[in-house]
Amino acid sequence: DIGGTNTVFGFIDETGNCLFEDNVSTRDYDNPEDFVKAISERIKSAAKSNSVNLRGIGIGAPNANYYSGAIENAPNLQWEGRIDISDMFRKLFDLPVALTNDANAAALGEMIYGAAKGMKDFIVITLGTGLGSGIVSNGKLVYGHDGHAGELGHTIVDHEGRQCGCGRKGCLETYASATGIVTTVIQMLKESDTPSLLADINVAEISSELIYKAAEKGDEIALAAFEYTGKILGRKLADTIALTSPEAIFLLGGLANAGKYIFAPTQFHIEKNLLNVFRNKVRLLKSGLADRNAAVLGAAAIAVNKIQTV
Amino acid sequence: DIGGTNTVFGFIDETGNCLFEDNVSTRDYDNPEDFVKAISERIKSAAKSNSVNLRGIGIGAPNANYYSGAIENAPNLQWEGRIDISDMFRKLFDLPVALTNDANAAALGEMIYGAAKGMKDFIVITLGTGLGSGIVSNGKLVYGHDGHAGELGHTIVDHEGRQCGCGRKGCLETYASATGIVTTVIQMLKESDTPSLLADINVAEISSELIYKAAEKGDEIALAAFEYTGKILGRKLADTIALTSPEAIFLLGGLANAGKYIFAPTQFHIEKNLLNVFRNKVRLLKSGLADRNAAVLGAAAIAVNKIQTV
Repeated sequence: DIGGTNTVFGFIDETGNCLFEDNVSTRDYDNPEDFVKAISERIKSAAKSNSVNLRGIGIGAPNANYYSGAIENAPNLQWEGRIDISDMFRKLFDLPVALTNDANAAALGEMIYGAAKGMKDFIVITLGTGLGSGIVSNGKLVYGHDGHAGELGHTIVDHEGRQCGCGRKGCLETYASATGIVTTVIQMLKESDTPSLLADINVAEISSELIYKAAEKGDEIALAAFEYTGKILGRKLADTIALTSPEAIFLLGGLANAGKYIFAPTQFHIEKNLLNVFRNKVRLLKSGLADRNAAVLGAAAIAVNKIQTV
Repeated sequence: DIGGTNTVFGFIDETGNCLFEDNVSTRDYDNPEDFVKAISERIKSAAKSNSVNLRGIGIGAPNANYYSGAIENAPNLQWEGRIDISDMFRKLFDLPVALTNDANAAALGEMIYGAAKGMKDFIVITLGTGLGSGIVSNGKLVYGHDGHAGELGHTIVDHEGRQCGCGRKGCLETYASATGIVTTVIQMLKESDTPSLLADINVAEISSELIYKAAEKGDEIALAAFEYTGKILGRKLADTIALTSPEAIFLLGGLANAGKYIFAPTQFHIEKNLLNVFRNKVRLLKSGLADRNAAVLGAAAIAVNKIQTV
């Protein structure tokens, strides 16, 4: 699991047990070749000492293209342009290698190791710094024609709304994410006279965790921010259900850890906005990977899926 | 192809030629059993006289459930409740029978007989009285968990918007459909002093065809109505592309026959609202079934798809 700051890697067996895990600082490597070489050496050494027989390599990364196996112009990585990361690993290991983004990896992880086992139609939503989504239909991950499907975070809530990092306005992830709820609280504190535990915190230090802690103490602003976030997310999920009719939607990531504070309003506004034929049959669930190593399980699932479909 | 007024049936061969076609008035039959019996007799007699060997039966119908093979509570049919129409035909013919709604049938028809041959990821939009959609991902039609996927017409444009027949407000089909553009013109005529050819027509007689004819003569209100319709449709299609990343989107049905008047603004507003990674690569195309018998080809495609996947 390649991130802008850290990269985590490990060995996952058929049943989802993590046999080994390690990490490196992504930023320590000026070029991807050195990065791949350093990780590979540690993987080979660990495989030997753990007597592990590797079957395939799965990589989760930002701006990953499943079809090309390359990372393409990732703004969060220090390496520019197109990085043929799958080829680099393939040359060093002679194993099946597959790459996708973290939300798609999470969806495959949910299907193979998590709470979506046996489901053929479901959606995984990652609520972190941004909002990612992985859509499974007919038992297969929807990559789309170009490998970039599943960008629910960049569907538009309000064409005159919040500025998004993608250059457009009003994307869902500017509202429904750990970053989005912080923006909502800051706006509410500015516009409201309601006393709040969050009013005493330096604006730069307000986080989704602190908002959750305030909600636990009954803070009105925190509760209103969760309600607002769940309303916007629930409405978009109702629209998404109308398109792909999933059996369940799983929430994962920092904001999903707020439990009932985010689940209850989201569920309420999903049902309120559903076309009648879909009502009371789509489950909103906590990810089955939530308390485990979701990132490494997701990456491993990419490899398993690749091996199974070859 | 079962409609509220008429039912059309025919024989389609492997290459999409229509060998025979006939129709009955759906309303002539008080119960579905008599209806199925009457059609079946005409089909059997026509198969004999045309020396045609039937391989399967495909049915397009409103409120059709692919999984159950039943029509369920269709408001546009005079028969109430659940109608096990697939079972009725199966008993009379001993052939594979498959059922789905008309937009899904159109998508399968596009894939098997139309302009989507060889495509694995595309969407068909039917712009008629309402807006229907059929989504194909990974080469398979997306039915979803309950068989009702593809309800793009019932995603919400504006939560305070136009009243929809489904009981909610602001559904896409209240704007982007033959009925929707008529509502738009009537509103524009009320609120504007711009002279228009459409101002002289009795409100009850304004149709999407008359709006098209006025647009051809350069009528400002008609052109503004197409621009508005294309803007709303284009924005929703941009969101839909972010989810399933299709290679192409096909438009079919009455309003799609308005050609450039609907295609140009829709295409413009799709591109304007796309996340950068999707720009300039999704084609908006005229359906390859547009000048043929789309309904019967679509229904036949359901049967072909059923036979191929059994």
